[in-house]
Amino acid sequence: MKKQIDLQQFPAGNLPARILMGPGPSMVDPRVYQAMAAPLVGHLDPEFVHLMDRTQELLRYTFRTENKLTIPVSGTGSAAMEASIANSVEPGTPVLICINGYFGERLADMAKRYGGDVSTIHRPWGEVFTPSEIEQALREKPAKVVAIVHAETSTGAEQPLDEIAKIVHNHGAILIVDAVTSLGGVPLSVDEIGIDICYSGTQKCISAPPGLGPITFNERALNLMQSRKAPVTSWYLDMSLVQAYWGPNRTYHHTAPITMNYALYEALRIIAEEGIENRWARHRANSEMFWEGLEDLNLKCFIPKEHRLTSLCTIQIPEGVDDAAVRKSLLEDYNIEISGGLGSLKGKIWRVGLMGYTSRKENILLLLAALKKILYK
Amino acid sequence: MKKQIDLQQFPAGNLPARILMGPGPSMVDPRVYQAMAAPLVGHLDPEFVHLMDRTQELLRYTFRTENKLTIPVSGTGSAAMEASIANSVEPGTPVLICINGYFGERLADMAKRYGGDVSTIHRPWGEVFTPSEIEQALREKPAKVVAIVHAETSTGAEQPLDEIAKIVHNHGAILIVDAVTSLGGVPLSVDEIGIDICYSGTQKCISAPPGLGPITFNERALNLMQSRKAPVTSWYLDMSLVQAYWGPNRTYHHTAPITMNYALYEALRIIAEEGIENRWARHRANSEMFWEGLEDLNLKCFIPKEHRLTSLCTIQIPEGVDDAAVRKSLLEDYNIEISGGLGSLKGKIWRVGLMGYTSRKENILLLLAALKKILYK
Repeated sequence: MKKQIDLQQFPAGNLPARILMGPGPSMVDPRVYQAMAAPLVGHLDPEFVHLMDRTQELLRYTFRTENKLTIPVSGTGSAAMEASIANSVEPGTPVLICINGYFGERLADMAKRYGGDVSTIHRPWGEVFTPSEIEQALREKPAKVVAIVHAETSTGAEQPLDEIAKIVHNHGAILIVDAVTSLGGVPLSVDEIGIDICYSGTQKCISAPPGLGPITFNERALNLMQSRKAPVTSWYLDMSLVQAYWGPNRTYHHTAPITMNYALYEALRIIAEEGIENRWARHRANSEMFWEGLEDLNLKCFIPKEHRLTSLCTIQIPEGVDDAAVRKSLLEDYNIEISGGLGSLKGKIWRVGLMGYTSRKENILLLLAALKKILYK
Repeated sequence: MKKQIDLQQFPAGNLPARILMGPGPSMVDPRVYQAMAAPLVGHLDPEFVHLMDRTQELLRYTFRTENKLTIPVSGTGSAAMEASIANSVEPGTPVLICINGYFGERLADMAKRYGGDVSTIHRPWGEVFTPSEIEQALREKPAKVVAIVHAETSTGAEQPLDEIAKIVHNHGAILIVDAVTSLGGVPLSVDEIGIDICYSGTQKCISAPPGLGPITFNERALNLMQSRKAPVTSWYLDMSLVQAYWGPNRTYHHTAPITMNYALYEALRIIAEEGIENRWARHRANSEMFWEGLEDLNLKCFIPKEHRLTSLCTIQIPEGVDDAAVRKSLLEDYNIEISGGLGSLKGKIWRVGLMGYTSRKENILLLLAALKKILYK
């Protein structure tokens, strides 16, 4: 046992003020930091209950949905991903997962863990699916749950969602969409598209710290939940229990992360003030500026323009360039974080997030200038 | 869809500065709020990696353990409770749960969801178990996992833990202990007692905001995990994956709630500065002062002194006194939060938390004075 401890080995945090341009966490508006300095109240305090109600309303605005069950899961985006699977999949449920990157693979892993009878279709990392590929897969093997990633954080590709929901519904399934790297930055309208379960994280285009996972379920998804034979294995992520806390009854389930909810509420207020369509347009305009700057540096984007995310840009690392050395110089000499590739793309691409409060012209100009200095000094 | 939104309906948070004397969240030292104002860094930033290492070391100090796997789960105390069950229980695992309050019941619910072959022993809410009751239960039906609550937040009873670990180990099982309302305030030495898995929350005696669930696994618990036939159903709480992120490899699993980790680190520094034994002594001294004050007001504690928690005091509501009206007056007239009873104790007890930064003489004097005013005005 640590009977004694040398206090000098545990100095105050003193974290550096980084320019965060990786795939998340993105930078946070100073207003959000200020909101987190508000004193804690109890998780059933009448004032916190008001804040919960308002947060749900602002999340509906951001998701573009009227869904009653629209709340932040008390965990990160990965917890929200798991909540989407845990509540819709039980042992034997036929599931179709579309995999064209790291997070599709994770969805398949989770669906198997929850006992799903999992089929997968694949596109090479960086490509996207056509509606007919999904239709064909459902014809070959029916499913009750189909999951696809809107914004693949591992590749930078944006999956077009038109027509997919209709196909999925015609085959009697529900559609889960991963919007971790798109919600609040990339055009996404849950109700218009017909998404049944959609989830995200707070640390990407919403620009709050990581720690909550916004999620929304429509009636079709709730009906599937109600027809379950077995209770949800995860008690913590069982939405029927979570819903009872966030709904009018306020039935105690767990102690919500109060401070993170202060942060999310303020971040959502900022989104509403900017206006969601304006925010989407800002992300596009700034990314286009970045893409042009990359061209000037003879750097190529990994994803063709038509499927390129406006929240996350992946750059092909030129031959002969040392991936790690460039990122190290960016961090140590210029205080800028970008990220390398995951899995098979490791060493082949850089990932640059232009999300939320990070998506500002001054950050883009600086990163381009720093890359120029490092690559062509 | 919410195409438009009326911004005036979403004012800034403006939360009141409550005196939090309920069963959690407890109050937070201003130093912890300051720590949360530090700018975000990435979850794999070298500076964050240092902070993770130091946090693990300070958690070991607080748990009184040398266990390598000692980390904060990225969810609340309930998520840590679920992590303890999810990793040790698989379909068919014989489990014994000791139930003498709300949180024992929750443990049994979780163990059933994860497929455990669950037996339970019961004591009336407010009482505690003797070692021989546990021994007898294990003789009647062997188990591989035994779970018990050290500090029952629903009743205010402290479960003595001496001898129990030895009995459990002699029967070839591991011992899980819920220390949500004791860690950092009530004497608890994980290694000395021989606990195999112990978990807590940040918002009780540690006095950080809710949002993380400290947990520790010893070798015996890790061996049980390694002998599993099936992977852990919950991907998010699978400690073999979580451990790979917190261990030397730093394998990406999920994005840690960065700001909450800043808060936890600072709160643990405060614990180390005070010294864990001094902190236990402070909780006892202040609670004794409170108990004496209650006597002067003719108010009776629900739990006899020998098993009364020094972190959470439950008070019998005198006959004829309106539970809700008293709590409402405390909140509205004096800005003090205390809590009512859960389940069968609803309307029968009040729950007063004296945890961490809340456990100060000024808070105790004030609450006693306010109770006197309300009850005997």
